[in-house]
Amino acid sequence: MAIGIFDSGVGGLTVFKSISEHFPNADIYYLGDTARVPYGNKSKETIKRYSSECADFLIKRFNVDLIVIACNTASSYAIDFLKKKYGVPVIGVVIPGARRAVSVSKNARIGVIGTRGTVRSCSYYDAIKNISQNVSVFQKACPLLVPLVEEARIDHNITDIVIKEYLDELNKENIDTLILGCTHYPLLKKRIKMLYSNLNIVDSSEVILGYIEKLGINFRENSIREIFVTDKSESFSSLVFQILGEVEIKEVFIEQPF
Amino acid sequence: MAIGIFDSGVGGLTVFKSISEHFPNADIYYLGDTARVPYGNKSKETIKRYSSECADFLIKRFNVDLIVIACNTASSYAIDFLKKKYGVPVIGVVIPGARRAVSVSKNARIGVIGTRGTVRSCSYYDAIKNISQNVSVFQKACPLLVPLVEEARIDHNITDIVIKEYLDELNKENIDTLILGCTHYPLLKKRIKMLYSNLNIVDSSEVILGYIEKLGINFRENSIREIFVTDKSESFSSLVFQILGEVEIKEVFIEQPF
Repeated sequence: MAIGIFDSGVGGLTVFKSISEHFPNADIYYLGDTARVPYGNKSKETIKRYSSECADFLIKRFNVDLIVIACNTASSYAIDFLKKKYGVPVIGVVIPGARRAVSVSKNARIGVIGTRGTVRSCSYYDAIKNISQNVSVFQKACPLLVPLVEEARIDHNITDIVIKEYLDELNKENIDTLILGCTHYPLLKKRIKMLYSNLNIVDSSEVILGYIEKLGINFRENSIREIFVTDKSESFSSLVFQILGEVEIKEVFIEQPF
Repeated sequence: MAIGIFDSGVGGLTVFKSISEHFPNADIYYLGDTARVPYGNKSKETIKRYSSECADFLIKRFNVDLIVIACNTASSYAIDFLKKKYGVPVIGVVIPGARRAVSVSKNARIGVIGTRGTVRSCSYYDAIKNISQNVSVFQKACPLLVPLVEEARIDHNITDIVIKEYLDELNKENIDTLILGCTHYPLLKKRIKMLYSNLNIVDSSEVILGYIEKLGINFRENSIREIFVTDKSESFSSLVFQILGEVEIKEVFIEQPF
């Protein structure tokens, strides 16, 4: 069996990387929908359609037996729809992240940062409340963090100003745990930890590994790694390099007639 | 006859606004491809395909007699292709902007700012060099300015820092004229003028008016204004409001089978 991972762009390579390192022998296929990135500001219907086209590609072309949705926005809006449509397990990043946060928070006050779409969907909020009604959840959309990461402004005073603008507000709510609800944010983890050493940081790209293990799937073990994007522009190459170093990336067309 | 304007998103409403004010009686249709915004970081082939789908919608649905490409990236990559494909005049923002810049520059040193796509295409560079070999052109991609405008950080210290990071470099080249090569930038015009009072600022949304007049077209004069987007998310509503105030926007699907 093989693992298929998709994301709106190349940020999800943080998830690909963690899964690759944890399951070194498994066959793993990644698709980044860079022709239509970002998903974060788009509507639920559009995101369901795009997600379905991504999943179709991975299932029909590589016969993957597990779909991992690396994108938080797609996990928020499309996971139930994909689970119903396909007969394979689908793991998103939201529920694993929510569970980990609830288990590590000591004061039951959790912050969530993400794109506008993720925050508006209230998916982390709902997932946490489903686990425990007694936890207080504070959400904050941080739409400027993705472009700052993509522009490699990770160790930069502008990024610190923006992080503080967003996180001071959450920190005032006396949270002790922060969910990084976007695939790009793990690249800012060191910076956020430095600025807010009081917070437990929950990084979904690490948390989902346990979920994949629990499925007890026997993966095909040829160590195949293939990375596809729907638009091969040079713009994202610095982000890919920051995450994975030098890798081969192929372009593919996935849009389907409406 | 009617005017059709398209853009990758709603930034092109700066162009719609200027045309609307200048031709108050003309019928004007606008399409923003918000389902696939931004174009700036995507490849030439993808941008040609998207632009063609936008033009098809305006021509087939409203029988427009003039296409204005408000998007700098699409003007850079797709204008020749659209001119060949359709039998109507197509006006982009690049050549008008280039001509104005050459005519106002006294020292023949011109700066151009835009998205990565616009800068990489060298379209302003080529257009200026076609007019005069003696002009020196200095380009700078400013990919963080679009998200800052979209997040309404117009009068904000972060935006000043980012503008200075990008423009100090151009200013050192002793330019006297700066082309705002992206539809979002007119919203930063006041800020840029304040920081760099030495520069002539060329805003294509104003420059193209003369080009439309010169076509001598008798427009249908029912003052119809219709604005369409391919994804009606709330995220861009603050930008629309900043440009136009309260307006009605309709959603439409334009993707075609490959």
